[in-house]
Amino acid sequence: MSMSAIAVNNGVNVDALMGAREALAKAPEAAQFRWQATCDWMNGTHSRATVSNFFGLGQDQQRKTEFRFDADHPEVFASEDLGATPVEYVLVGLGACLTAGIAAVAQHRKIQLRSVSATIEGAMDIQGILGIDSDVRNGFEGIKVSFKVDADATADEIKALVAQSQKRSAVFDIVTNPTNVTVEVA
Amino acid sequence: MSMSAIAVNNGVNVDALMGAREALAKAPEAAQFRWQATCDWMNGTHSRATVSNFFGLGQDQQRKTEFRFDADHPEVFASEDLGATPVEYVLVGLGACLTAGIAAVAQHRKIQLRSVSATIEGAMDIQGILGIDSDVRNGFEGIKVSFKVDADATADEIKALVAQSQKRSAVFDIVTNPTNVTVEVA
Repeated sequence: MSMSAIAVNNGVNVDALMGAREALAKAPEAAQFRWQATCDWMNGTHSRATVSNFFGLGQDQQRKTEFRFDADHPEVFASEDLGATPVEYVLVGLGACLTAGIAAVAQHRKIQLRSVSATIEGAMDIQGILGIDSDVRNGFEGIKVSFKVDADATADEIKALVAQSQKRSAVFDIVTNPTNVTVEVA
Repeated sequence: MSMSAIAVNNGVNVDALMGAREALAKAPEAAQFRWQATCDWMNGTHSRATVSNFFGLGQDQQRKTEFRFDADHPEVFASEDLGATPVEYVLVGLGACLTAGIAAVAQHRKIQLRSVSATIEGAMDIQGILGIDSDVRNGFEGIKVSFKVDADATADEIKALVAQSQKRSAVFDIVTNPTNVTVEVA
């Protein structure tokens, strides 16, 4: 009982991740991943996306599950609100990425987490997307993420956890730095 | 019958959007929106996000529905694959944003859409997130979006639709340009 009470378990298999890091450092071609989603227009601003397979470790990776996501605009934009808005999906991805990172870093640093929750807020001046003012950008003017972390750790250790997660976060990088996007019509 | 066969209907209320544009040009403070998601850590790399209310048109906007999203890492990362990965959420948002834009622009240009589908692919060298090589970025090396559009329009008109959607897309802007993100621990 006391052993299991002491053992840190955030449910992250850090040994496997360390093994993967070692293996991929020797075989960098296996580290080339390709993530993918498909999106079908339903009606109006409503679309449905699916996420299933991806490419990685040198081959197509089949998932057991296909994930489906409805997106739409809300009623204040005269839409039917049949799903989250596209920009909210970005906020979901950002929160999830930082949260998974906190769990992984905590496991590595032998810090037991009890709870982690975040609020992710994106400010947007919709004069941009409506084409009212070309000086206003279409995307967020800024994003604020606020974490509450309950863990067996000091406030400084928790801050360091969150900072390290941010440093290794894919979505934090995608949002804070430019990425080249090619859009083509088949 | 022939009237309704001729009328273009993509399910987008362009008159309402044009009205909103006119109204917000006169009241730019109402155009200040704040989108939001919350994210709770479940276990391991699994988290659950909710999207419900947002702020806009000068007040909190209550939705009828709360949208929930599970995110996780896949089994090849020694996780349980209980949801799409955070980076796939970004691809979903990008596809949905461009697709909704195509429908809205088509309606405005009186082009009847029959179907729109997209594949959104993000290439990633995971040596970045694993911390193997600090010269490799954490996020996507690039994203490729490929649309198939079936519409009562020429190939050039369809290309122009997609281009205009891209020009006004919030998520395309978020991904291709940097956004300031503040992460704090409460």
